[in-house]
Amino acid sequence: MQIKVLKNVMIKNDAIGNDNRGRLNHHKVYSLNITSSPGAGKTTLLENSLKQISKKYRAAIIEGDLYTSRDAERLTGHNVPLIQINTEGGCHLDARMISGALNELDLNNLDVVFIENVGNLVCPASFDLGENIGVLVYSVTEGEDKPKKYMPMFSGADVILINKVDLASVCKIDLDKLEAEIKEINPKAKIFRISATEPKTLTKWNTWLDEQIGEYKKS
Amino acid sequence: MQIKVLKNVMIKNDAIGNDNRGRLNHHKVYSLNITSSPGAGKTTLLENSLKQISKKYRAAIIEGDLYTSRDAERLTGHNVPLIQINTEGGCHLDARMISGALNELDLNNLDVVFIENVGNLVCPASFDLGENIGVLVYSVTEGEDKPKKYMPMFSGADVILINKVDLASVCKIDLDKLEAEIKEINPKAKIFRISATEPKTLTKWNTWLDEQIGEYKKS
Repeated sequence: MQIKVLKNVMIKNDAIGNDNRGRLNHHKVYSLNITSSPGAGKTTLLENSLKQISKKYRAAIIEGDLYTSRDAERLTGHNVPLIQINTEGGCHLDARMISGALNELDLNNLDVVFIENVGNLVCPASFDLGENIGVLVYSVTEGEDKPKKYMPMFSGADVILINKVDLASVCKIDLDKLEAEIKEINPKAKIFRISATEPKTLTKWNTWLDEQIGEYKKS
Repeated sequence: MQIKVLKNVMIKNDAIGNDNRGRLNHHKVYSLNITSSPGAGKTTLLENSLKQISKKYRAAIIEGDLYTSRDAERLTGHNVPLIQINTEGGCHLDARMISGALNELDLNNLDVVFIENVGNLVCPASFDLGENIGVLVYSVTEGEDKPKKYMPMFSGADVILINKVDLASVCKIDLDKLEAEIKEINPKAKIFRISATEPKTLTKWNTWLDEQIGEYKKS
């Protein structure tokens, strides 16, 4: 009984996710679903990537949090539309929440929407939001051994940003070993090594993202 | 409909949790439910606390993971009974899983069972396992701002171990500020500052735990 209900929840989520995808595609709005454990650096990444991307593209943010609007407050300085979703304890964003947030955005005047998911390395893997790409931010402080332990998040991501690489040596993390395990699970993922607090380490990622948005807009 | 089903899941979980509590109490086995985000240091804590606690008490471990038995393998050297639970993608341990694990342990010959939950700072908060105390391990690398963002995990814990304090300065974390926010949410929680990789920083925690187990055995 429980399993059947959960399956229905998933089928419904995926249907709404597909509607979101169609709607975003109709308006040529590129979308990213950014996931990670708590405190792995999603908001810091957004702060610094937005500075670059919003020079060229009209961006918006959908911000997911259990209760507070702390992340949203950190992002208000960028002067882009920002929709806060509070899940009231819920462990992930779902497609219906995103559908509601899209109602609040002027999609005709947007090129890209960044969705920051709830900090959780398990549950968001199961919920398609309708995004173009899934971006997993993984902090080296979480250890070398997590890709296989938290497989669905690693195998489902299109891009994996290995963050806080400046802490790798103090945390005794072998970045090559970590990256090799990620590739074993997900050979197709695009991987970048970054320190989200250091904007210069984001250049390759920002350039790649810029190109993706450009190609999408032309397609 | 979905909410009703979820409520039933919770009621059932709490009933089984109470059964677990009664069963552990009958055998005078003290139990800890150890939670955290992925990579915050639960297993390292266990490795080093077990060395101390198992000198005096007969300990066992119940190890929760999505898929692998990597954490369990790290703990086999301690020569204590160890039950691995793989949730197959599930985001938390529940009371029924623990009930099954207790069937595999010789409760008459145990004093304490350490339950290591799945790495997740959201979902485990909702599932009583029947434990005596909930222990939240929080890594400073996750930031100062998480207690209010992930409130249920912080408000529900009996003990909060602030871990990786050796990384506080490099991560620009003000430990007093972090601790003040925790106390605002949960004034009753016992708080210890530790570096789980450095056994000497665990002395106060281990001594406190030793006393708790001793009092419980006498009660």
